Formats: sequence, structure tokens, C-alpha cells
Amino acid sequence: MTSNTWSDIEKQIAQTAFQKAYQRETQGLMVQLSEQIQNATDINCVWKLHDYLSAKRHQIDGRYYPIIHSQFQEKVQDQDYAGLIFIFAELFKEQWLSLEDLEGLAPDKIAKIKAIAYL
Amino acid sequence: MTSNTWSDIEKQIAQTAFQKAYQRETQGLMVQLSEQIQNATDINCVWKLHDYLSAKRHQIDGRYYPIIHSQFQEKVQDQDYAGLIFIFAELFKEQWLSLEDLEGLAPDKIAKIKAIAYL
Repeated sequence: MTSNTWSDIEKQIAQTAFQKAYQRETQGLMVQLSEQIQNATDINCVWKLHDYLSAKRHQIDGRYYPIIHSQFQEKVQDQDYAGLIFIFAELFKEQWLSLEDLEGLAPDKIAKIKAIAYL
Repeated sequence: MTSNTWSDIEKQIAQTAFQKAYQRETQGLMVQLSEQIQNATDINCVWKLHDYLSAKRHQIDGRYYPIIHSQFQEKVQDQDYAGLIFIFAELFKEQWLSLEDLEGLAPDKIAKIKAIAYL
């Protein structure tokens, strides 16, 4: 399988990895928010947190749109899987995914993910 | 002094009361947020909190605009003090201000604040 075609097994691996990253990133955000609100000294700290949360929500909604808004396995088309290479590269770079999470994807996909992440 | 004119002492009382309400309401919001983020079970709870915070920020910015964005005592004009009757009525209704905080305002102002609050 090349970066342009995905086997059913690769789709399953991608889906599982994507869900793991989503759980890790959203749980991480919840912990971070909880700490920051405890340390807030006045309402301006809260408004800064609100601005940050607005940006994160936009980013997370965009990044995880396929699993949030559709049945990933059934509805995402092959061209969306191609786009996942770029999202996986971001998630790998930000350490929401490890290479172990992507184990089972074709070597050229892993190579592209690493290459983009290290750009 | 009537509801349309404010003595310097009344302006000082209004300013102090307004600042007290601002401190109480913003501190209350910080405590509430802190509790809600602790009880959040998933990211959807955080997004609901974000929506709530967006609405509260809009409301608080609008309500306390004079003390947030200007030197209250120096820059707020008499017509703005007239509008404060309505804001004080809201703050009294929502228990961010008590009648004790407004002590020293002319009886007709207090009467109007109570009348509007109890509408």
C-alpha cells in the first residue's frame, strides 16, 4: 500500500491512532485548564484563558473533524485518508502520537509522516 | 438629588458599589469555573463551559464597561450615571449588591433601583 491507497487494516490503525490522539489531546487540555484556572489571580487571567480556549477549540474541531462529526470507518473517503498523513505528522510532532501508535502502516506512509513532522 | 442628578458623594458611593459588584461577580465566576472544570468528565463539558464563558464575558464587559475602560470618576458623564440606575437594579436583583452598598444615595434613586429590580 502506498500513501495514496489505504488497506482496511491501515484504515483501522489510522482510526485507532486518531482516537488515541484525540483522547490524549483533549484530556491534556482539560488538565492544563484545570491547573490554569487554579492559578488565575484575577478575571483578566480568565479572559486570556478564554481566548486560548477559543483558539484550541477551533484547532481541535478542525483537526479531529472526521471522528467528531462522522462515522470514521464508514464515511471518510479515500482522499480524506490521504489528508490524514499531514494530520498524523502534526500529531506526531506535538507528541500526541508515537511511532508505535502508527505501527502497521506502510513504510512509505510512516516515512512521509516523519519527513513532514521534521520539516 | 434626584435620579437625574448626582452629587459628588453619590458618584463616589456609586463608584465604590460598582467596583464591589465587579469584584464579587468576577471572583464568583472564577470560583464557579474552577468547580466546573474539576467536574468536567469530557471535552464536551469544556466546550459548554467555553460557550458559557463567552456569554459571561460579553455580559460583564457590557455591564462594567465604565470601570474597565475609563477612569470612572473623571470621565463618566452625568448621563452615564443615570444609566447606572438600571445596572444597579440588575446587580441588586442578582445579589452582587445589597442595599447597604447603596446607602447614601438619594431615596428616589434607591426606590427606582428596587422598583426595577422587583419588576
